[in-house]
Amino acid sequence: MLKIGICGYGTVGQSLISHLEMHNDKIMSNISEEFVVALIADRSIDKKDHRKDIAITKDVMDIPSSSEIDIVIELMGGIDIPYKLITASIKNKKHVITANKALIAEHGDELFQLAEKHNVYFGFEASVAGAIPVIQTLTNNMSNEDILSITGIINGTCNYILDQMSSHDLEFTDALNEAKKLGYAEADPTFDINGMDAAHKISILASLIYKVKSPLKSTYVEGIENITSMDISFAKELGYCIKHVGITNKQNNSIQCRVHPVLVHKDNILSQVLGVMNAVLITGDKFGTSMLYGHGAGGDATASAVVSNLVEAINFSSNKDLRNKIIFKNSGSCSFDITKNNDISSPFYLRIYARDISGVMAEITNILANQNISIEAVTQHEPADLDSLIPIVMITNNVDGLSIDKSITKIESLAHVEGKVHAIRVLKTDDK
Amino acid sequence: MLKIGICGYGTVGQSLISHLEMHNDKIMSNISEEFVVALIADRSIDKKDHRKDIAITKDVMDIPSSSEIDIVIELMGGIDIPYKLITASIKNKKHVITANKALIAEHGDELFQLAEKHNVYFGFEASVAGAIPVIQTLTNNMSNEDILSITGIINGTCNYILDQMSSHDLEFTDALNEAKKLGYAEADPTFDINGMDAAHKISILASLIYKVKSPLKSTYVEGIENITSMDISFAKELGYCIKHVGITNKQNNSIQCRVHPVLVHKDNILSQVLGVMNAVLITGDKFGTSMLYGHGAGGDATASAVVSNLVEAINFSSNKDLRNKIIFKNSGSCSFDITKNNDISSPFYLRIYARDISGVMAEITNILANQNISIEAVTQHEPADLDSLIPIVMITNNVDGLSIDKSITKIESLAHVEGKVHAIRVLKTDDK
Repeated sequence: MLKIGICGYGTVGQSLISHLEMHNDKIMSNISEEFVVALIADRSIDKKDHRKDIAITKDVMDIPSSSEIDIVIELMGGIDIPYKLITASIKNKKHVITANKALIAEHGDELFQLAEKHNVYFGFEASVAGAIPVIQTLTNNMSNEDILSITGIINGTCNYILDQMSSHDLEFTDALNEAKKLGYAEADPTFDINGMDAAHKISILASLIYKVKSPLKSTYVEGIENITSMDISFAKELGYCIKHVGITNKQNNSIQCRVHPVLVHKDNILSQVLGVMNAVLITGDKFGTSMLYGHGAGGDATASAVVSNLVEAINFSSNKDLRNKIIFKNSGSCSFDITKNNDISSPFYLRIYARDISGVMAEITNILANQNISIEAVTQHEPADLDSLIPIVMITNNVDGLSIDKSITKIESLAHVEGKVHAIRVLKTDDK
Repeated sequence: MLKIGICGYGTVGQSLISHLEMHNDKIMSNISEEFVVALIADRSIDKKDHRKDIAITKDVMDIPSSSEIDIVIELMGGIDIPYKLITASIKNKKHVITANKALIAEHGDELFQLAEKHNVYFGFEASVAGAIPVIQTLTNNMSNEDILSITGIINGTCNYILDQMSSHDLEFTDALNEAKKLGYAEADPTFDINGMDAAHKISILASLIYKVKSPLKSTYVEGIENITSMDISFAKELGYCIKHVGITNKQNNSIQCRVHPVLVHKDNILSQVLGVMNAVLITGDKFGTSMLYGHGAGGDATASAVVSNLVEAINFSSNKDLRNKIIFKNSGSCSFDITKNNDISSPFYLRIYARDISGVMAEITNILANQNISIEAVTQHEPADLDSLIPIVMITNNVDGLSIDKSITKIESLAHVEGKVHAIRVLKTDDK
């Protein structure tokens, strides 16, 4: 009888208990050893509804030190206490499951090695894209060939906000407030909207597929705070929507790992990922383009991913499924460079405010031409009001970030151009 | 050193050999035992390009009888010979991998039990949706809760034809010829376009998730031969596209398993599955809606799925991954009814040709009202030519097949209605 300790009894912890109860038969049919939730640790457990037949404690460190517990499930959030808790658990030969993306992005390399050393299971499926089994699929099904690229819509809050801005013509702040009202954004949504949450997730995926140490610190991160409803509607006219994505790929020995808004063409299936949904588009050199789509957050969806790890942990413990050892065998072993954002080429969307004076367009296109940038599409709009500034919107050819930056500086210095030029990358697809 | 025998050396077999060569390092990092392709069997092997360092035979039955071979990979197609070959292989304690959907849909129950009895691995990932790891995902990641429904675009030929009809305004025959020219349809595409291929695949998925014997024989099957470009353009006006899908779900103890064209609303992500791509939308009671998307056919994509099974087979053989035993433990154990197509409710698209005479619309709506069918949307078009017939197109409320059939019979008997009424179900989505 394997004994489980749950650390953190919030939405996910409560959904987990309910899932284990409701689907005990189905879970038991997938394992050959009985299990029981023996201890729940949460510092506010006395203020929460909990089952009276499960022991509780307010001190999460009771779990790694308990000789009773075989499997530790960490659902707390934060980094320092989970790190302490999990390292102690592994050292005490306990299997560990966590949904903590920040922890894995920061300390995954070390934890993977520690788990391997102490011969325990370590699962973190719920840390990236919630219910979407992206980690299990990448490590088990897609690990026999080269992964050329991953492009993921991996922050439901950003996706919801951008989708609302597009479908209801809202500005960022209004859409964010709407998201907060519906529980799709936290009270402090900073790490969602500034891209840090997505950066954690894409770093985890990059380190898994390329067997490198977490590239979090070298990841280029840009949020959605500067996207306006005007950009969304200009993009729409040109056949695109705006999505916030994490991208990783590898060319030669250099890895790209970046998080920012992109224009996605309406024929790309990622453009159809609406609301809070997440999706991860993966290209392999043999299987071609694949996508996994589903709920990236929410108690039930996240708990479902935790349960799939729990089944793996129990089968690991009874020597029925030792794949976890394989996954971590060479983790972090490959060295790599991170491609600088300035060196990365893509088409760009540019939005420029200029005075409605003849010759402005010629000045702008001359600056671009001098950097070998050509224009694939352009729309010029009527002034939004009577101040005679006109928005000029264009999509360039494939060009590196440095050339775009140089051009933007020059364009911004033109006498008849006002304010900042807004540049957004256009997603290239590697459809195979 | 595990020895592999490959039966059938067509496109997939050749892609498999090339995959195993190119990605030997990656594959080796996922297993702990060496392997080699020891024998290739193909009755026309003498007419094909093959590696000189691998033994060949024209008799596929050499493989199950060889005491050398540990793992048999069947890539032949057809049913009778593969059945004989695979049962003999299992009885001789060889692990088996097959891409043969017809075989699994017809004889899967028996083969699963035989494999369990003889303690060998049995993999068939490539039999459904090519490179999409739908079988592994359903059995490993999604098997800890209730699967409420599966809706799959699982025949690339049908999807390509419908997509071409829609995007280039082609009739069925022209789009089929185009598909043949590009190699997306076989010389004899009967089983693709009449729905049998999709029926094999959805039956396999139904039997896996509901632990029932293959429901193939009770599966309702309808192809795309009767879809016209006019239906596609009428559907488009109403905000839908037409897709060919396999559907399975379970209510109480009754299982739906059916294959037919449906109208898919443009906001449903399935509507964005274009060209030859496949996708499987899966709804669980906990993880909500998920979708797996990718290449459903092609040598490299199919071989990639075979390789993922091969890694499982090798890890099974070395006692590192015994999950395959779990999958088959209760296979075929649940009894079930199949819901009759007539009892299944959905909205319907109806296209009726009527003379442009006042009162026709009233007659039609009266017939529908008498069956408690209401109309959610209707468009009436100008006659296509001068014969004064007008196409009336409507979408009904949620209604069972029997009521629709009764209404259609009555509508067709109206004096001013000509020809057959064309009815297509509208896809309901269980988005959670």
